[in-house]
Amino acid sequence: MLHEKVDRFAQMRVAPQPDSQIRRIVAVMSGKGGVGKSSVTALLASALHAEGLAVGILDADITGPSIPHLFGVEGKATIVRDGIMPKLTPGGIKLMSMNCFLDDETQPAVWRGPMINGMLKEFWSKVHWGPLDVLLLDLPPGTGDVPISLFQMIKVSGLLVLTSPQSLVSMVVEKAVRMGRMMDVPVLGLVENFAWLSCPHCTEKISLYGPSREPAPGSGACRKT
Amino acid sequence: MLHEKVDRFAQMRVAPQPDSQIRRIVAVMSGKGGVGKSSVTALLASALHAEGLAVGILDADITGPSIPHLFGVEGKATIVRDGIMPKLTPGGIKLMSMNCFLDDETQPAVWRGPMINGMLKEFWSKVHWGPLDVLLLDLPPGTGDVPISLFQMIKVSGLLVLTSPQSLVSMVVEKAVRMGRMMDVPVLGLVENFAWLSCPHCTEKISLYGPSREPAPGSGACRKT
Repeated sequence: MLHEKVDRFAQMRVAPQPDSQIRRIVAVMSGKGGVGKSSVTALLASALHAEGLAVGILDADITGPSIPHLFGVEGKATIVRDGIMPKLTPGGIKLMSMNCFLDDETQPAVWRGPMINGMLKEFWSKVHWGPLDVLLLDLPPGTGDVPISLFQMIKVSGLLVLTSPQSLVSMVVEKAVRMGRMMDVPVLGLVENFAWLSCPHCTEKISLYGPSREPAPGSGACRKT
Repeated sequence: MLHEKVDRFAQMRVAPQPDSQIRRIVAVMSGKGGVGKSSVTALLASALHAEGLAVGILDADITGPSIPHLFGVEGKATIVRDGIMPKLTPGGIKLMSMNCFLDDETQPAVWRGPMINGMLKEFWSKVHWGPLDVLLLDLPPGTGDVPISLFQMIKVSGLLVLTSPQSLVSMVVEKAVRMGRMMDVPVLGLVENFAWLSCPHCTEKISLYGPSREPAPGSGACRKT
């Protein structure tokens, strides 16, 4: 009997650009939009970069890309003979996003799944990521084409799941966690965003989306205090 | 020359269930998630219903459905010989959602575009909507498969676009507006959500996502005061 877990998607894996040497790939996912996925991805990338790691972000939200905007990166990506050069943030984080291919950032990508998947494949297999300690994948909301394709194409090291205290969000986020399990992608951790804000006038704490949720007993989750 | 606008998608239209007589179909869209699209859809439906109109909601967010939860509607939809009966909210709004077909609401629909489109077609052509004054379509974020299919399949009367004061959201929302134009769906109006909140402690106004944006001059938008 094999003790190593078999890669069920081995046949569907796509090789990265030959000069890409990527140690870890972490997907940031939430199931539901507007939980601050792209902001947390950008902050995490900056934190890892500040620790001296080489970091890249693949913005997998083809129809609603946010990453270039968050870093103030503008302009198109450079196409070279054998691939595409990633854009660089002023700090030196590499990134690739649909917005790096548009004449104007408000132009919509009115695309069906196969077109979107084709673009993701380019972002993975044609981009000169070079040596990276971590590549973060900023996933779009939902459990549709994009996460299915990425989890089949790329052996993702783990999933970072974003949530907020809203019960509605928890239900949709639970869908994302269960999808990770179905696709053999381990959940590395859960970030609860929008837990509270401090009033700029009286400094009192406001729990805008209801009280923060303690992790369920036995879930294995811990809270950084 | 024709003065009436030609329906470019006439060949792709799908007929509703024969007993469905729907006067107006309004799609609620935002491009980006988490702007409160489902909440605004639910509030709008309740307001129209309170005015005495017969209202239905088609929850087109197959991979992240929120509508049943918002109305406290649970349990599965009833399948009848020639179609599907919509669920009813306690107030009498008709609704149909992916969650009405799941054993447990946290079960994910790990589906590609064609599967999702098939389900949307059922929601439109098999559901006994009956006579309705307004059917609201709660769209998922983005400009991918779901809005493309719905705008081809159904002759939508107009689009209600949701936004928040964040510049990031405006950019992604502009993509939704431009998609509407590409698909010949007129934009009926824009709702700016999350403009501000009132601190529950000191009652001061907090503009969480920056200052509210006045409509651009000449945009034709007006503000309800």
